[in-house]
Amino acid sequence: MSETPGERMHRLATELFPICRSLTGAGVRQTLDVLERELPGLVRIDVPSGTKCFDWEVPAEWNIRDGYVADLEGNRVVDFQRNNLHVVGYSTPIDQEVEWDELNSHLFSLPEQPSAIPYVTSYYKPFWGFCISHEARQRLKPGRYRVKIDSTLTSGVLNYAELILPGRTDREVLLSTYVCHPSMANNELSGPVLAVGLAKWLLTLPERRYTYRIVFVPETIGAVVYLSRNLEAMKRNTHAGFVLTCVGDERAFSYLPSRYGSTISDRVAVHVLGHRCSDFVRYTFLDRGSDERQYCSPGVDLPVASVMRTKYGKFPEYHTSLDDLKLVTAIGLGGTYDVYTDMITLLEANRIYQTTTPCEPQLGKRGLYPNLSIKKSGVPARAMMDFLAYADGTNDLIGICDRIGVYAPTLLTTLEKLSAAGLLRDVTP
Amino acid sequence: MSETPGERMHRLATELFPICRSLTGAGVRQTLDVLERELPGLVRIDVPSGTKCFDWEVPAEWNIRDGYVADLEGNRVVDFQRNNLHVVGYSTPIDQEVEWDELNSHLFSLPEQPSAIPYVTSYYKPFWGFCISHEARQRLKPGRYRVKIDSTLTSGVLNYAELILPGRTDREVLLSTYVCHPSMANNELSGPVLAVGLAKWLLTLPERRYTYRIVFVPETIGAVVYLSRNLEAMKRNTHAGFVLTCVGDERAFSYLPSRYGSTISDRVAVHVLGHRCSDFVRYTFLDRGSDERQYCSPGVDLPVASVMRTKYGKFPEYHTSLDDLKLVTAIGLGGTYDVYTDMITLLEANRIYQTTTPCEPQLGKRGLYPNLSIKKSGVPARAMMDFLAYADGTNDLIGICDRIGVYAPTLLTTLEKLSAAGLLRDVTP
Amino acid sequence: MSETPGERMHRLATELFPICRSLTGAGVRQTLDVLERELPGLVRIDVPSGTKCFDWEVPAEWNIRDGYVADLEGNRVVDFQRNNLHVVGYSTPIDQEVEWDELNSHLFSLPEQPSAIPYVTSYYKPFWGFCISHEARQRLKPGRYRVKIDSTLTSGVLNYAELILPGRTDREVLLSTYVCHPSMANNELSGPVLAVGLAKWLLTLPERRYTYRIVFVPETIGAVVYLSRNLEAMKRNTHAGFVLTCVGDERAFSYLPSRYGSTISDRVAVHVLGHRCSDFVRYTFLDRGSDERQYCSPGVDLPVASVMRTKYGKFPEYHTSLDDLKLVTAIGLGGTYDVYTDMITLLEANRIYQTTTPCEPQLGKRGLYPNLSIKKSGVPARAMMDFLAYADGTNDLIGICDRIGVYAPTLLTTLEKLSAAGLLRDVTP
Repeated sequence: MSETPGERMHRLATELFPICRSLTGAGVRQTLDVLERELPGLVRIDVPSGTKCFDWEVPAEWNIRDGYVADLEGNRVVDFQRNNLHVVGYSTPIDQEVEWDELNSHLFSLPEQPSAIPYVTSYYKPFWGFCISHEARQRLKPGRYRVKIDSTLTSGVLNYAELILPGRTDREVLLSTYVCHPSMANNELSGPVLAVGLAKWLLTLPERRYTYRIVFVPETIGAVVYLSRNLEAMKRNTHAGFVLTCVGDERAFSYLPSRYGSTISDRVAVHVLGHRCSDFVRYTFLDRGSDERQYCSPGVDLPVASVMRTKYGKFPEYHTSLDDLKLVTAIGLGGTYDVYTDMITLLEANRIYQTTTPCEPQLGKRGLYPNLSIKKSGVPARAMMDFLAYADGTNDLIGICDRIGVYAPTLLTTLEKLSAAGLLRDVTP
Repeated sequence: MSETPGERMHRLATELFPICRSLTGAGVRQTLDVLERELPGLVRIDVPSGTKCFDWEVPAEWNIRDGYVADLEGNRVVDFQRNNLHVVGYSTPIDQEVEWDELNSHLFSLPEQPSAIPYVTSYYKPFWGFCISHEARQRLKPGRYRVKIDSTLTSGVLNYAELILPGRTDREVLLSTYVCHPSMANNELSGPVLAVGLAKWLLTLPERRYTYRIVFVPETIGAVVYLSRNLEAMKRNTHAGFVLTCVGDERAFSYLPSRYGSTISDRVAVHVLGHRCSDFVRYTFLDRGSDERQYCSPGVDLPVASVMRTKYGKFPEYHTSLDDLKLVTAIGLGGTYDVYTDMITLLEANRIYQTTTPCEPQLGKRGLYPNLSIKKSGVPARAMMDFLAYADGTNDLIGICDRIGVYAPTLLTTLEKLSAAGLLRDVTP
Repeated sequence: MSETPGERMHRLATELFPICRSLTGAGVRQTLDVLERELPGLVRIDVPSGTKCFDWEVPAEWNIRDGYVADLEGNRVVDFQRNNLHVVGYSTPIDQEVEWDELNSHLFSLPEQPSAIPYVTSYYKPFWGFCISHEARQRLKPGRYRVKIDSTLTSGVLNYAELILPGRTDREVLLSTYVCHPSMANNELSGPVLAVGLAKWLLTLPERRYTYRIVFVPETIGAVVYLSRNLEAMKRNTHAGFVLTCVGDERAFSYLPSRYGSTISDRVAVHVLGHRCSDFVRYTFLDRGSDERQYCSPGVDLPVASVMRTKYGKFPEYHTSLDDLKLVTAIGLGGTYDVYTDMITLLEANRIYQTTTPCEPQLGKRGLYPNLSIKKSGVPARAMMDFLAYADGTNDLIGICDRIGVYAPTLLTTLEKLSAAGLLRDVTP
């Protein structure tokens, strides 16, 4: 199969794009059906409306079949069937004629982005409304209109899914992404399809040091629900974690740290981004906005960071119909996939090493020194000597490589050779 | 009463201005009389000349009734009655005719500031002398002059005073200022009048968490004397402290840190100045020059910093007759008063908080979130969420606010609401 | 004797310059003979070829009597007798006629430095070769040549020497330099002659707090051999240490730190260089290249830094015949000698002090304050007061002086006076 990982992920995003997702409802289940087909071991969980989760409560389930604004001749001027962004998320049902003024108080458009349909929700306050491009809005003729939203907001369930890929140890790496947005590509489908891509790649590894917990939840309430059911195990086991969101465009990478920015997740992210994408954007935890708000909250305290392309809220297409499958590309997804596979490779390989002999080893007699310094494909001998100089049992691989200015993944073969030659000992506690 | 705190303080400075203070003597007692009238609970202490205090000894008491230089017709060309700066502090008595050359070796003037009478003392070396504006000096005609200083330098006492305002705990905040300079306004009267203003304000508070120790001493020897009598209690109890000096002009604020610059006094000073007066000047402890020299000395080790307007030695009027009640203004005093009341408010409010629930609380259902984000007068919701994100039991209020870039005093009402809603717990040890 | 230390060191370098040193052999022994004459207590050690030292093995002993390239008329066109750099170090013996092409594959020259004879060795791979200036090489006529190298490479010994100057305590300062390069002056003779100069100076001190371990070894293998025989004692006792190399030119000073750059050796080097030579160059440990590679290796972990003039590899004359006694001067050597004697003086004097009285001492009554502030030759009173302000038992002399911005050696007399007056206590653990 000559399809690249990026192309495969883009194809999956294309399949998932038309589904009308929300916090709850049939669209989420339909999305999880597709993900389960891709990831056979996926476990799906239903949580009833009204369930208490820490300070929150699972909301009513929302489903929608149709929605439109029509003129009195029956011409649909706003139509959910053409774009599911047209109806405000969690809109209560309605079916009546309204005056021009009332209609306008339920319409949302963006004068600065006249061709874009905005994305609006009203999860916690009963409301109905329509989103429309400003261009279309300006073409509407004043008068009475018929509005219809064929939705239900009733007791039901909130759905989420998780995939646990066991490793040699109970220590876990969390990959969390969300499935609650209707037809938008970067925020959000890039996240779930990258999660699928990484899960498939993890399944190809000969062995995994860490267990991987891959989580598909509706944003915010889903993360709260998930944590309320898994907190103790996650606090005990989580070694590193990332929120996968806005990972599909081709713009510069960005990094949003954990609460204090000093966990292993932060260190591996900064190391990999620093070497692969030197122009990456550094945000602070004050810029947070996705599920790291829950994962890094006091009392949860998980080591979770985000590596994104352009951060949510920072790209012009964000939360509009312009966030589509032209913005998210196979190249964009593939580049982020490469960054994440490097980060995970490095997490798996990150150990504390100690040399076995005082003084520098005599690498020449073992063929390690000249081979390496001459062969173009190898690591420069200097990097190897610098690594050994700090392999004193107090630094992990990332720490040494940050110090010596070397991209850690390029050293892995060398470290295997040095270990095989009996010159390095793994002293990870 | 429509008088502002700044006006009240300026009025008090005006009353105290003419008194001829020195390390010891009637001028100090007269000053303490006025302060006692303002602060009824003030306790006054006399320490006999010759008393040993650490490495120092209380000097002889100096009193002066008159002093002048007169020509042989009896015209006073330099006259203590017109300005008490004219006589060198601690001048020994003299009454004789002197030659022109001898007179000149006992005259001090400032060629670069020809209209200013300089302030000169000779506490520890017996000497007599006069200070005179350079303009006046240049008008003197060569010849013999009669010099008279009607002073006494005899065994007596050194006077100081303290006011203890008890709080809920024994932990203390020290406010120390000095009363040993003759007619100069910024250095020194701005200090004592601000101390009086703050004491009156502290008495209006519904309750005080800390006990306040407000100290009026002659500079250097007075601080040494005071410490020699109170060191153990102060070492045990002092939570924070400030030296009040040069606080009355309208120029930029400045900050002089404690010995290592990392005490709570430093943190609160930098936080408040950083938000209220972003152009404030940061000195180092190497620039010290007032009683922080004693309070922060090894073996004393108190957490004492200074928040000033222009630092002593850095304003042109310093230690001259130009340091008068035009340099020190009600506005200048009032601005510093506002900074100090904010600092004390923040010290009182500074606690370590911890959220009571994992994940973000659901603020919407409690009316906390929308209220706050909409009302103009309230704190932005973002600041509240950022506060909660770091309320993990490891940071105090100042630490969190420094991290999230919010001026701590603006959060206090919000913290009360969050605490009342059961979302925050005070975990201060 | 009016000879300066710099002149004396330059004279010794001139005597040692012609000797053909290498890792092993007669040239090293001849060099150590001269050093032993200068330093009577020098102890010399022979280590047999083949001895295992950690991961290394002592190589065969190399000796050379003659070497040349001659045309077929017998004219020597390259001649070891004229410059011992002409023969590649550790060349195997040869005596035969060679074709022009073969000769050229054994010739080394530097097109960019056409007048320089390069310095080349082949310690661990059997090889013969000649080094020649590029100018001379270009004058060679194509044709057959006779090459002769009258060398031996046989089982023998590796020689090194050490001088231990006992001090009041077992704690040691290591001064290590190397004796394995033929006729080159900065890299290497400047090192051994500075070591001799410092040893002679140390012998003149009335007493030494530290024991001095002065080591003359061939570079790399010699340091490995030395450590393999002394590691435990050195790990137990070494307080500070320096590698002496490239210390004789007149260019800017440079500093190469220990592995983490935070040992007392680093602190004293940065303090002294920072005050004496503010334009000094700071390298990192990644720039290392001499015996600090062994002394600072994991498992050895000694606090060893280097203070150099221009670092090896960074001056154009490095490892060529241009590195001669015009590049290394009496002034250059003397300046480095002054830096090292200051560093050692400061190491000897560096203590943790604590004042004996709370508050500032009354220096005036002891004549300490005015004397110091008036005398031009003395230390400013401000520096003394600043020192006392931080003499709280937590900082050593260097730490205080770094903080107060004072060059520590200028304070030593003052500290003696303060100690004699009972105002300072030595609380070094």
